[in-house]
Order: sequence, then C-alpha cells, then structure tokens
Amino acid sequence: MGPDDIRKLLKDLRGKKLGIEGAMQKLKVLPFEDLGFAKIDNHRAIRRGFPEVILCSGKTEKQILGIIRKSGCFVATKASRRIFEEIRRFRKDAEFNEAAGMVFSKQQKRKITKREKILVVSAGTSDIPIAEEAAVTAELMGNSVERLYDVGVAGIHRLFGNKEKFFRANVIVVVAGMEGALASVVSGITDRPIIAVPTSVGYGASFKGIAPLLTMLNSCSPGIAVVNIDNGFGAGYMASLINK
Amino acid sequence: MGPDDIRKLLKDLRGKKLGIEGAMQKLKVLPFEDLGFAKIDNHRAIRRGFPEVILCSGKTEKQILGIIRKSGCFVATKASRRIFEEIRRFRKDAEFNEAAGMVFSKQQKRKITKREKILVVSAGTSDIPIAEEAAVTAELMGNSVERLYDVGVAGIHRLFGNKEKFFRANVIVVVAGMEGALASVVSGITDRPIIAVPTSVGYGASFKGIAPLLTMLNSCSPGIAVVNIDNGFGAGYMASLINK
Amino acid sequence: MGPDDIRKLLKDLRGKKLGIEGAMQKLKVLPFEDLGFAKIDNHRAIRRGFPEVILCSGKTEKQILGIIRKSGCFVATKASRRIFEEIRRFRKDAEFNEAAGMVFSKQQKRKITKREKILVVSAGTSDIPIAEEAAVTAELMGNSVERLYDVGVAGIHRLFGNKEKFFRANVIVVVAGMEGALASVVSGITDRPIIAVPTSVGYGASFKGIAPLLTMLNSCSPGIAVVNIDNGFGAGYMASLINK
Amino acid sequence: MGPDDIRKLLKDLRGKKLGIEGAMQKLKVLPFEDLGFAKIDNHRAIRRGFPEVILCSGKTEKQILGIIRKSGCFVATKASRRIFEEIRRFRKDAEFNEAAGMVFSKQQKRKITKREKILVVSAGTSDIPIAEEAAVTAELMGNSVERLYDVGVAGIHRLFGNKEKFFRANVIVVVAGMEGALASVVSGITDRPIIAVPTSVGYGASFKGIAPLLTMLNSCSPGIAVVNIDNGFGAGYMASLINK
Amino acid sequence: MGPDDIRKLLKDLRGKKLGIEGAMQKLKVLPFEDLGFAKIDNHRAIRRGFPEVILCSGKTEKQILGIIRKSGCFVATKASRRIFEEIRRFRKDAEFNEAAGMVFSKQQKRKITKREKILVVSAGTSDIPIAEEAAVTAELMGNSVERLYDVGVAGIHRLFGNKEKFFRANVIVVVAGMEGALASVVSGITDRPIIAVPTSVGYGASFKGIAPLLTMLNSCSPGIAVVNIDNGFGAGYMASLINK
Amino acid sequence: MGPDDIRKLLKDLRGKKLGIEGAMQKLKVLPFEDLGFAKIDNHRAIRRGFPEVILCSGKTEKQILGIIRKSGCFVATKASRRIFEEIRRFRKDAEFNEAAGMVFSKQQKRKITKREKILVVSAGTSDIPIAEEAAVTAELMGNSVERLYDVGVAGIHRLFGNKEKFFRANVIVVVAGMEGALASVVSGITDRPIIAVPTSVGYGASFKGIAPLLTMLNSCSPGIAVVNIDNGFGAGYMASLINK
Amino acid sequence: MGPDDIRKLLKDLRGKKLGIEGAMQKLKVLPFEDLGFAKIDNHRAIRRGFPEVILCSGKTEKQILGIIRKSGCFVATKASRRIFEEIRRFRKDAEFNEAAGMVFSKQQKRKITKREKILVVSAGTSDIPIAEEAAVTAELMGNSVERLYDVGVAGIHRLFGNKEKFFRANVIVVVAGMEGALASVVSGITDRPIIAVPTSVGYGASFKGIAPLLTMLNSCSPGIAVVNIDNGFGAGYMASLINK
Amino acid sequence: MGPDDIRKLLKDLRGKKLGIEGAMQKLKVLPFEDLGFAKIDNHRAIRRGFPEVILCSGKTEKQILGIIRKSGCFVATKASRRIFEEIRRFRKDAEFNEAAGMVFSKQQKRKITKREKILVVSAGTSDIPIAEEAAVTAELMGNSVERLYDVGVAGIHRLFGNKEKFFRANVIVVVAGMEGALASVVSGITDRPIIAVPTSVGYGASFKGIAPLLTMLNSCSPGIAVVNIDNGFGAGYMASLINK
Repeated sequence: MGPDDIRKLLKDLRGKKLGIEGAMQKLKVLPFEDLGFAKIDNHRAIRRGFPEVILCSGKTEKQILGIIRKSGCFVATKASRRIFEEIRRFRKDAEFNEAAGMVFSKQQKRKITKREKILVVSAGTSDIPIAEEAAVTAELMGNSVERLYDVGVAGIHRLFGNKEKFFRANVIVVVAGMEGALASVVSGITDRPIIAVPTSVGYGASFKGIAPLLTMLNSCSPGIAVVNIDNGFGAGYMASLINK
Repeated sequence: MGPDDIRKLLKDLRGKKLGIEGAMQKLKVLPFEDLGFAKIDNHRAIRRGFPEVILCSGKTEKQILGIIRKSGCFVATKASRRIFEEIRRFRKDAEFNEAAGMVFSKQQKRKITKREKILVVSAGTSDIPIAEEAAVTAELMGNSVERLYDVGVAGIHRLFGNKEKFFRANVIVVVAGMEGALASVVSGITDRPIIAVPTSVGYGASFKGIAPLLTMLNSCSPGIAVVNIDNGFGAGYMASLINK
Repeated sequence: MGPDDIRKLLKDLRGKKLGIEGAMQKLKVLPFEDLGFAKIDNHRAIRRGFPEVILCSGKTEKQILGIIRKSGCFVATKASRRIFEEIRRFRKDAEFNEAAGMVFSKQQKRKITKREKILVVSAGTSDIPIAEEAAVTAELMGNSVERLYDVGVAGIHRLFGNKEKFFRANVIVVVAGMEGALASVVSGITDRPIIAVPTSVGYGASFKGIAPLLTMLNSCSPGIAVVNIDNGFGAGYMASLINK
Repeated sequence: MGPDDIRKLLKDLRGKKLGIEGAMQKLKVLPFEDLGFAKIDNHRAIRRGFPEVILCSGKTEKQILGIIRKSGCFVATKASRRIFEEIRRFRKDAEFNEAAGMVFSKQQKRKITKREKILVVSAGTSDIPIAEEAAVTAELMGNSVERLYDVGVAGIHRLFGNKEKFFRANVIVVVAGMEGALASVVSGITDRPIIAVPTSVGYGASFKGIAPLLTMLNSCSPGIAVVNIDNGFGAGYMASLINK
Repeated sequence: MGPDDIRKLLKDLRGKKLGIEGAMQKLKVLPFEDLGFAKIDNHRAIRRGFPEVILCSGKTEKQILGIIRKSGCFVATKASRRIFEEIRRFRKDAEFNEAAGMVFSKQQKRKITKREKILVVSAGTSDIPIAEEAAVTAELMGNSVERLYDVGVAGIHRLFGNKEKFFRANVIVVVAGMEGALASVVSGITDRPIIAVPTSVGYGASFKGIAPLLTMLNSCSPGIAVVNIDNGFGAGYMASLINK
Repeated sequence: MGPDDIRKLLKDLRGKKLGIEGAMQKLKVLPFEDLGFAKIDNHRAIRRGFPEVILCSGKTEKQILGIIRKSGCFVATKASRRIFEEIRRFRKDAEFNEAAGMVFSKQQKRKITKREKILVVSAGTSDIPIAEEAAVTAELMGNSVERLYDVGVAGIHRLFGNKEKFFRANVIVVVAGMEGALASVVSGITDRPIIAVPTSVGYGASFKGIAPLLTMLNSCSPGIAVVNIDNGFGAGYMASLINK
Repeated sequence: MGPDDIRKLLKDLRGKKLGIEGAMQKLKVLPFEDLGFAKIDNHRAIRRGFPEVILCSGKTEKQILGIIRKSGCFVATKASRRIFEEIRRFRKDAEFNEAAGMVFSKQQKRKITKREKILVVSAGTSDIPIAEEAAVTAELMGNSVERLYDVGVAGIHRLFGNKEKFFRANVIVVVAGMEGALASVVSGITDRPIIAVPTSVGYGASFKGIAPLLTMLNSCSPGIAVVNIDNGFGAGYMASLINK
Repeated sequence: MGPDDIRKLLKDLRGKKLGIEGAMQKLKVLPFEDLGFAKIDNHRAIRRGFPEVILCSGKTEKQILGIIRKSGCFVATKASRRIFEEIRRFRKDAEFNEAAGMVFSKQQKRKITKREKILVVSAGTSDIPIAEEAAVTAELMGNSVERLYDVGVAGIHRLFGNKEKFFRANVIVVVAGMEGALASVVSGITDRPIIAVPTSVGYGASFKGIAPLLTMLNSCSPGIAVVNIDNGFGAGYMASLINK
C-alpha cells in the first residue's frame, strides 16, 4: 500500500464509502514505510546513489548474482575479479575497481559537485585496498577525494612533508593496520574530524586488527571516531555524510 | 624561540650579522612549534575554547588541582563534586555540571551561534551521565544541543514517537550500554552522521562496555562511527567538529 | 495523540473539516504508538503486571527513587535492603524479598492460575540469589514455581534423587556458576525446554561467569537456551512467556 | 538387562528362586537405563522423531557414513552436497535440503499437527543457511513454520511492514550476524518468547559471531534466550519444545 | 528410601504382599543413591575425612555459618580470621590455619600413615597462601607433606640447590604466579607427576592468573596437569588421590 | 665431560698431577649434566621408552624426517598417513596407528606389566582421535588401557550403564569437546584421579576448545586436573606417571 | 657448602682422607650455586646494587617488613607512604621517593659513573608514577637519567620541540597509557633502542593497559621492545643493562 | 626542497632578493625532512644498511615486486622461495636464506666489525625459522651472531651445558613458542639484556603465541623485553641497536 492507496482510503472515508472504524482498522495494519516517512524518502534518495550495497564476503556467488540481477544501480564491496566477470556477463554497465575490490554500475558514478575534499590517508602498502574502498565509496557518493598513501609513523617525515593536504580537507579518513598510531598522529596536527579505519594488516599480537582498533578508540587526541576493522566502505560513507 | 626570534634571526642574516651556515644551524634545531604551523594556531584557537581538558579519572587530586592552577580557561571531565569544591576554593569562576561530571570555567561558556543542532540520544537512565558529558561538551564548543533520553530499544515506540527530532539534527550522538542496539536502530531511520558511544552500563556479558562497543562497530547500517567506551567528551567534541 | 485523536481526525476528514492532503500530512507525523498497535496493547497488558522493572545496579539511589515515585505498580531487581528502606518511606505497598534482592509493590503479586509448574534448579549455595530472582519473577508473573537448590554435579545423586520433579515441570530454569555443567546434565534427563542462567559465582578461570556461559552455550544436549550472566530476572521472565 | 530381565528377577525372587540379598546385589549393579526411567522413554520417543542427529562438521566422511549406516531414521546437520551423495548410495530414503545443509531420511518428515506457528526471522542474506537449519529442524519435529528473511535493522521498515506475522507466531527464532540488533528490536514489538541465534556472518570486530552473541545476551528487552553461534539446529529444536 | 526400605520391598514381594508390577513401579522411582552404589559409599568414606568442604569466597557469612552448624566434621577454604572467630563461638573444635586461610574441625586431622611424600613448591612469597592451602589440604587427607618455598625461576640456583627433595617426593605440587615458568622447569628435572597451580599473583599482563595458567597448560615438558587459578585446595586434593 | 672424565680429574688431583685451584677451575665449568644427576638417568630411562617424541604439527616434513633419521626408538604424534609413508621408506620398524595419528618404532611397544588399568573415556565420536592418542601413549608406556567412548552427557544413561569400569581403573582420562561437562560428571561418580583433556571439537562459542577447557578448570568436583586442548599425548603420559 | 668446603673436599681427596668414589658422591649432590658459577657472582654483584627488590603489591605488610628486616641493602617498588613509615621505624637508612612509589636504603644510591644518558619519556600526567619508577631504578643502578614528561601525541609539537634530547640519549624508555602511540612516534625520530612501558592509565577500551601493550608490540617502526604493563622497574633495569 | 634550496633561500634573504616576511612564509611550509634533521641523516645511514625492509606477508606478489623494483639495496622478510624466484628474474643480486624466509641484495651483506656477539637461542625445532630471521637480520646489520638452538626447558641440561655461551654474548635473543619459559630461565643464569620473541608455535591454549607472549611479559626475572609474536626481524634489529 503506497501513498496513493492511502489517499484512496482517505478519499473513500471523505466520500463516506468507508466508516471511521473501518479506516482506523486499515490504518493500524498499514505497513510503516507506506506512510511515506522521511526515512523512506531519504532511502529512496540514497537508493538512487547507492540502491543496493552488497558485501560480497560471506555470500555465495549465486546469492551475489541473484541480488544484482534484481538491482537497478548497485555497488558491491569485497569483490574479486572473478565475481566481476560473472556480473559482467549480464550487466554490461558493470565496472571494476580492482584496487578497491569494488564492482558498481557505471551510472552510479556521479558528477562531483562539492569543492570540499575528503582526504584518505593510509599507513602502509598493505592498507591500500581498504583505503581505496573508502576513497572510491566517497567518490561514488559525489565527493572530491585526495589520497595520501604510505605515510606511516615509521617514516613520520613523509607525513609532515604533506601537512598542507590536511588543511585542504574537510574530513580525513585514516586507514592503518599494525599498531594504528597514524590516526593519533594525524589528529595531533589537524582540527578536522577524522574517521579512523583499523585494518587486519599485521601479524601476531595485532590479532587481525584488534591492536589498531584499540589504539584508535583510545586516542588521547579528541576528534577521532572509528569504524569496524577493514570497513573502508563504512568510512567512505560516513565521511561523505559529514562532508554534506 | 617564538616567531619574533625567527624574525630576529632572519634580520640578523639580512643585516649580515649572521652567516648562512650559522643560520642553517640555528634553523635545524628550531623547535617545531616555533615555526607557527597551522596546528599551533588551531591549537591556540581551540585553547581559547578548550585550553586545558583534564580527564580527572586516573589523576590524583593534587595533580588535577596543579594543572588547573596553571590553566586559564579549562574543562575537567569525570569530576566529582568533591574535586569541584577543591577547585572552587581558588577558582571562583569554576562551575559544576553534576549530571555530566564536568567542571569548567564560566568564560568557557560560549554564545551559541550555529542554527544546526546536535541531537544527543540515550538508551537508559544509567547512560545519562555519559550523554550529558557529550551534550555539555558540545554546548561548551558553541553548539545548540537537543536531548532525547531513555528511548532504548525495549520500548522502541518512544523512539519512533520522536522521529521528527532526528530530522532536525545535523549530527546525532547515540549513547547506549547493555547491548547498544540503539545506534543501529537510529541509523535505520535517519541519514545524519551518527557518533555512537558505548557505555559500561550493564552487567555480566556486557563486559563493561565491550558488548555495546562491538554492536556499534558491526552495525549493518552505514553512517555510524564509534568512540571509546564512556567517552562522552570525545563524542561531543567529534560532533562539534562535524557541525562546524 | 491517542486513538481518540485519530478518530477525531478521521471524523474531521469525513465531515470535510479537513482536506485529504492535510490528513495525509498529519498521519505522516503521527507518533508510532498512537496508532494503537498491538505492541502497545501488549505493553499495557504487561504494564499491569510489570509496569516498571528497574535494574538497580548501575543507577544512583536518586535515580531509582525518582523512577519509582512516578511508577504505579513496580518491580526492582538487584536491590539492597537499604534501597528498600528508602522506597518504603513513600511507598507503603513496597515489599522486599531479600534472598532475591527484589523490591515490588504488593499489588504486583498475582493469583496463580496456571497448573503447569516452572522448576528452578540451582547448583550451589552461592547461586541461590540468582535462582531466587528467577523464581520470584516467575511467581510475580502468575506462575507456580518449584525450587530445587544445591544439586550441583559434584553430588550428582542429589539431582537423580529428585528426578520426578523434572517431569512435573513445564519449563526448567537451571542456575549455575563455576563450570555450569548442571544445565547439560539436567538436559540429559528431561525433555522440557531449559533456560540456563550462568552466574558469576566462582573464581580464577571462571572469569566472572564466562566459564558457565560458554558451557551452557556449547551444551551437546539440545533444548537449552541461555540468558546473560546473573540474569535471574530474564530467565524467570522467559520461562513465564514459555509457560503461557 | 531390559525391563523383561528385571521382571524375571522379581519373579525369581517371588518364586523364591532367589534370596533377598542376592536380588539386592543384582539391583545394585543394574545399569541405570535398564530401569526404564522416563528419560529413556522420552529418549525413545524422541528417537522416533530424531533418532540420530549427526553434526557433520568435525567428523570425517568415514565416521559420518558409519554412524548413518547403523541408524534407522536420521538427521545430519552442516552437511555438504558431497556427503549427501555418499549417503544416497546406500540410503535411498535420504533427502537433502541444500539451503539448510541438512540430510535426513524421508520418513523423518512428519505430518504437521500443530496450528501454532514458529516464525523464523533472519537479518541478512548471509544468515539464511542458519535460519533454514532452524526452520527445517522445526518442520521435521512437526511444527508449522513461517519464514521472514532479510529484515535487518538497516532497513527497519521492512520489519515493521510485516508485524502481523509476529502476532501470528507462538515462538520466534531470530537469526542475525554482524551486530545482531534484530533480536532486541523484534523483542521490542512482540511479547512472544524469542530464541536468538547469533551467526558468524560479518567481519573484523564481529569476531566470528562474538559481537551478535554479546548483543543478544545483553538485550535490554526481556523475553530473549540465546543458543550457540550458528546453532540453527538448537534454535529449531528449542522452539519446537516450547511450541509443544 | 534407604537400603532397609529396599529390603522391605523385596521381602514384601517375596512374601507376596506386593505384585511384580507394583515392585517394578516402586523401583522405577527409586532415588539413585538409595541403591547404595559405590559412589555413595566412597562419598561417605570421603565424608569421614572431608564431610563438608565450604568455599567461603562468594558466600555470605550467614550461609557459611549455617552450613557449618549442620556439619559434623568440616573444612572451610578461603576463610578469614573473622569468619573463624564466628565459627569458634559455637564450634569449640574449630582450628584456624591462617597462612592457608583454612578453618577445620580438629578431628579432621588424621594420622599420617603414608611414607610417600607430597612436595609443595612455590615460586614467590606472595604465592605462599595458595601453596599452604594445597599443603594443609594434603595433610588433612593423611599425607606427609614437604614444603619448598620461594624458589622461583629468577633465582634458579635455589631450585637446583634442593633437587634431592624432588626425588624424595611421589607427587609434586607447583604453585606459581606471574609467568608461572616454575612448573616447566621443575618438570625438566624430575619424572614425578606434577600438579600445577597458577596464582593470581602478578600485575598488568598476568591478567589475574591467565598468564601462568597458559604457561602451565602449554608446557613443552610432559607430566604436568593444571588446576584452576588459586585452587590450592584442588591441587592438594588431586595430589592426595594420586598419592594413594 | 662424562663421569669417567670426572673420575680421571679426581684421580689426577689425588695423584697430585693437578693442584686444588686447577681442579676448582675445571669443576666450575663442568657441564651440568656430566655430573650424572638423577634427572639425566631418568632421562635416559625415559629415553629407552620414549627417546624422541616428535610433535609433527608445526614442523616441516623435512624436519620430521631429519629428526627421526637420527633417532633410535621414537614416537611421533599428530602424524598423517603421508608422513608415516615417508618414514616407512627408511624405517622398516615404523608402525602407524591411524585413529591416534601416531607413528612409532615397533620396539617401542612394551610388555604390559601393570595390573592397574587406565580408563580413557570420551564424550563424542569427534573426540576419538584425541582419546586414542592418550590411550596409545599410555599403552606404549606399558599400561593396560580400557576405552569407553561416546558416553557424553547428552545420553548420560550410557555413562551410568558402565559405571563398574570407573571402579576398575586406577586413573581416568576424560576427553571432551563442546561444553566438556563429562569430566565433572565422571568426577561426581568416582574417587579416582581424573586427567581431563579439552578438545577443539565444537563450533561457535566453543572457541576451539576454550569452552571445555574453562569447564574442566572450574569443575565444582575436586579430583580433576587438566592438560592443554587436544593434548592426548600429555594426558596419556601424565596418567602413566600416576599409574606407576 | 661454599667454595671453602669444596676446597676442603679437594684437599681431603688430595690428602687421601677421601676416596675417589666418595668425592664423586659428594660432588653429585653439591648445590648448584656452591660451584661459584658466574651467575652467582653476577648475582652477588647485582646484590650489592639491588640485593633485594621487593614488589610490594600482592604482599601483606607483614611479609614486606619481614623480608626487609632480613635484607641488607634493599629496593621496594609499588610502595605506599604508609609502608615506608613502617619500614622507617627499624631501618633509619630507608628513603622514600613518593612520585615513584619506591623505598630504598640510602647506601643503594650510587655514584653516577656513566656519561651516556638514559632518557625517560612519558605521555601524560597520569603516567608519571611509572615513568619515575623507571627513572629512579636506572639512577639507583648508576645511570644518568634525563626526564621528558607530558609529551603525548595529542600535542606532538611538544615532542618535536625537544628532539635534541633524543640524540643525547643512549637508550630511551617510553611510558604511555591510553593508546600508547608515543613509542612508535619516538621510534620514528630516533635510532636509539627503545624500551616501551604500557601503563594501565585510560578507561573503557584501554582495558587496563592492553591497548597500549598491543600498540607497542605491533609498532611498524623497528627498534622497540616492550615490558609488562606498569612495569617501570623492569624498564629502568633493562635500560640500565643496555647502557652498560 | 633540500638543504641547497634552504641555502639558496637564506642567500636570497642575505642578498636582499627576499624580504623577511617572505622568508618567514617559505620557512613555515618547509617540509620537515628538508631541514636535514638528524633523523633524516640516520635514516639515510640506516638506508645504506636497510634501505627497504619489506614484510611480504599481507602484500600481494605484485606489490612486493613493485617495491623491490624501485629499491636499491633491500631486505624482504617472511618471503617464500617462489617470491625469491620472481625477484631473481630482474634482480640478479638477490640472495635467499630459506631457513629465515628472507631475500636480500648481496651488497646488503656487511663486513662484521664488532667483536661483541649476539647470541640467538631457540627452544624447539619449530622455532628455528623465527630464530634464523633474528640471526640473519643481526648479521646483515654487521653483527657477529652465535646460534644455540633446541635448548628448550624440557631438556634443561642442554641449556646448562652451554652456559659459557651466555657469558660470551653482549645481547641475547630468546625465541620460544608453546609456554615460552625459556626466556625466564635464560634470564635466571645471565645478566645480559634479553630480547624475547614469542612464536606462534604450539596448539590449543597457546593461542597462536599469546601464551609465550604473556609468559615473557610477566617474567619474574628482570632484564627481559619483548617483541611481537614471530617478529624475528624486530628482535634482530633491536639486538643490533643494543650491540652498537
């Protein structure tokens, strides 16, 4: 039952084809979304940009293809080249960004209208796939994105040598594995809000990302909020909401 | 060595009182901050608003009072009434917000200049101190704050009954202990960026906040970033940076 | 806006005092609960039995008293004698069950109408407070409760010596700390659904209830579901829903 | 020694072929089960429905086939198509439900005699195998099962749009990975007992199901009990015991 | 129903006062322990030595005193001087071993009849209470006990300077906190079975005994089995069973 | 420098070919083992029985074969058929026990001289490899071993139906995964020392053996000591030391 | 048996008062340390400097005083003023460093003979007690120590403003709680070996020092080794060994 | 902008081609490293020795080859033979140390100029790859390295039989998995600084290196500092810095 059905119901009531108690009854079982609440509108608005976001890991190939077949515009994360090739068979508009592990329909790519930049910073070479996931997500949502990769704390001068980039950005996404100290250090040299993404890069006591996650949560420098381990998509999405 | 000292050095060089290699030598040991980098300026700017933020827990009374004595304008978090009374003896401008557990100098209170609101939502009665810490922090940084407390998932209709507030806000801070599901639910009905604060409220398998922390990090709904357990201050600060 | 308000709105529409689009607009912002959804009705029904359940731990005395002052009929868990005495000053109908650590208004006590029993079993003497919390909760919800305490696995013959009780019950609540093996053993001798409550009783590697929690979750015998550590109330409540 | 042997013994005693102390001696070493205790009877009754439940994961193919060869009626969980095909070679009555990963003998399928429904709800596409395991288990135990899949908290309107299903059910099984908030939300809109199943779906800080497990255990809404991560079978079994 | 009752039943059957089916019926509900199974006999035998072992931690003073009042011979562990003094008021036979934190009735003390010794070794001064709990428990069970304290790995020569003691013992109890390496080292110089007791002594990353617990479980030297953190009683009891 | 060298040194001293300080000097650097300490003798004695125990997991095939090539009599644990076949090429005396995953030289098999039995009990089918590892280890060390498999708590009557076996044994090894409650239950019906082996059998919240490990460590029934997860070898070895 | 006893034994052998086998026998049971191995000498050497190091936490007042009474020169860590005052009663040479929580005998204070400095750096005010413990320990071992406190990552310019200190030091001790990023940052600007000390300062997800511990262990910058949480003594001791 | 550019700037100022404020402005944006700070010089110095250290695990083959192509002198850790063969195709100077899993350019091998040795000790055969990583790293940095492998605590006499090696070394690296007690034992017999490396060797409750990590952190013997699990490179690097 969509808005038109409600209108019809109200008309019937007004036209006395329907009694008050009957209308009450129908309204009670009215599905929530049919009321056209803002959420739904937003949802639809987002849908035009991000109608179906499919996290490929944990789904079978069959499930992924099934969902995309029913989608209009779509974005798939943690996707392999192989899954891209399967999608490509029936979706000629599919495009693959291998560094980010993302497949999306071309019409998803939007014109960048915002001057304010999102800066995506990563600590090491191994963190790049997650950083790219964040960057590409933000770009697909219409943001201008600047990248600053491989500026980990071990060679801190590389970070300081690029400090002007930190003042050009409106929001900063910091992607780091191992000990994840980069978020704290970046926070120490800027006053922009930082979305920190711990990655599962590392070994031993990094415990697949627990170490950088805890580092980022405990940062002694305020102005940092954290998303899940390896959640580049979530960071790019959040940065985009902030950049609005 | 401040900017004036550098100017003097450059003048001496220009006036040939100093050779090039001598100037090189002096510049090499130049303390970083003396270059007047933006960070320092920002720092000073923040300092005017938040010059000294003192986390009282983990510090002795003596340390806290010592720091505040040397501070101009200040904000202290996780403060007890007792510590406030000690501060009050020598700082007549100290004010105490007991619900938030915060002491601050009156001149810290700023005129609210922004129309955009920050909404602070809390799940249960026991989460209120952390929610207030976030709200008061945001207010001290010049934001207009709306509060929506005790709308936990157990009585989800209370949340839906206030949904218009979610659309009036520019940023939302969600404070929840126990299972922390509130952040996901709020995210499901709005498209504003959400800063989620897990609290140590709960018992047993809430493990002093680990349960809501994990819930919030794993939210299936994008647009949420998380701060440390019980870190109301950090959430208010981050929300304020976003609301700029 | 309650059901009457909606009726009024519909009448106005019918009486043409209100246009269709105006009615649409009002319905959109209609608070969820005002539609009189079943949840609300249930909620009210529950409210008559359990209008306000207050978990005292984690709340200040002031908060607890404040909530109870505004409550009609109420139940408070994890309550001390001291808090009971404070409540008693203004609520003459308050009653205290010290073993269970529960305070409740007398009118909360309901006539037991069900023949089917709930059996509450506990492993050791130290588990009794949690077992009593479960038993009293179930009684307050109108159930007939049988208790079988101190029948831990170390003296398994005591358990087998009471096996007829297991066949008289409709639902069984098993409360155990330390290694929590009792739930598995009870499950091995009955086919009734079991609600298992791990307790924080124990020391060392019991890790405040993690050991029995894991034991109960991993039971090789099906027919067991688990509630939070020390959550006697939740177990009694769940058992009561099942016993309906 | 079965009931007939005991009868023989008692007859011998009565017939004075056996002295009192001799009978005492024999009774002392009497194996527990031979007394025909209710448990055994129940066991046999269950056996007719679920004579051998084989958890395939953790067993070698050889072990699984060996057990099934000796079984009459059987149910195998976490089974692959490959294992099904091996079983099929010597058990023509074997049937495979691929979505649930379950193999069972056809005669296991029972007539549904109960009107009360069990509702199985799942959050995401990736949770479906566990949800199906629960649903199929409940069906094999003679229950009428309704499914409501892919109604996670990120799109909460889909959940509310199906709320009438929650009132038609007698017991509800909620299956969710990632942050597992769905159980709390469902609990907030119904008064039926809920069996919550955390799944290992997710990544990073979901820690293979720890996140939803903790969420479900800490739910601020009573009426939820939890089974092991990915334990769809246990949830279906428990729901069936409750639905009796 | 005790053995006499069974005899009576059998007599009635023999005397034809009771039919076979009636006897069958009565035997079915016969409490397990009434059959006089060996376990019960052993239990009684142990009872003479250790009739009631009360773990005081986690019990209220009232509970402890209540249990002891109903006990004959008893042993209480993790007991304070204060609880001893309360017990002493009504039990003149109570004795207190303060180093071990144990209270017991004097008649509990048995003649040592075994030549084989149990050696109790401890790493540091802070581990002595747990070591004493093990030693006193073993003595109360009739064993000859030798003590070797403060021979931690940091001063390994003290350990080697006493190596003849390791060959005089039949069983060795090793008590150690911090990193707990002592068990491995002792195992490296003897071929006696070792019961290892991790203690909660230490700080930081000892995590209240997790560090020595893991050390002892992972010992590369076979011939070590482990009891719970701080479980001196369990170690003394196990050593005594082995020394039989 | 062996005992003969020491004797030579002492002779030289006695024969005045060597001065006292020279002898002192040589004795100071004397390697520990050359003193012929009991440990070494024991070691040698054990060596005859268990000269080289090789844990295959974590070693490369090359390392394993290299060690065995240099060994006389040997035992290898966690070995695959493939590794056995490689060993067999150059060690015709190698024998493989596939159920236990052990390879050993035939001369390792010893005559059983002890009447006292070791009983090895296992909970489920999947626990059998670890149980066999314990049983075979004990047999190789000259013990008579009885096996009682598949008597988990879910069908507790199978356990009670074999209780006479518990009284025939001198030591009991209990092997269980999932929730590991079997050790507590066995302990409740016998007074023999129990070596408990948690296994990594299970899924979800069994956390690869942490659940049964904690269960066994926290057993409310004394007389249980625990070895590492899946450490069947260690349990068999410990049981053998106790059975001496 | 000390070196003199050995000399006597050798003399007796030489003087033929003792046979060779008799001497062999005595040497076999010779306590390890009596051989005068280097360890013992070192131990004695250390003893002159650090004869008795007593970790006060976890020991009773009585134990601490008892150990010190028997000690010559001593050092006590984690000591309160109260314990100092008790020591002072019978040890007039006792001195208290309150910031470090250390009591030691005055003669322990040694002349500083080394030019190479140890630099002790701390992140926040709350970390100072642990930093002082490290600094005082190093000073008591004869090192020249420089302190640089309150230079956490949140105000990174303070760190860079003191960078010349990093080049003057031979070893650096970095003390930090919360997220512990300071060690990585210091490592990024120096090539001196760094001993990192995580502290339990922080709250929520710092988990009493686990967060900085993991950060420090995972540092992407080599040249860092870590000691236990809050182990200032161990860091000062290690730095002193390196500075030798 | 390098030192020459700064010199040019200063010359321009001196030559009045540039005003003071203009010079100020340029200096403000001066990249940190261009000041030629010591760090950079050290960095360059290190670069000559260790210009590019590539941790292969966690990087794609493509990334590894890409980095090495751009490197002069290089060292790659955790490298497979396969990756070595790929590198060899375009870098004829590449050399492979298979035991250590390291690839490096031949010119990286330096003349050993230091007399002081680093001793690398390992507990078991499975720990050798990590021990070799430490040893080879130290050798590549110009140190003389002695190896002492397979001297675990289970056969402690092998350790004591080599004690002279401990006194010949200046720094000791101890590599151990399982329970990791070796570091404590070595520390008990020497006064050299020890760098301890926990390895992921072991199974069950070793939790992939957590057990030895905790053991090493909690050592009751001072003079030990710890690096990450399996971080042989970090240990060799740290030992080399200490040996300078």
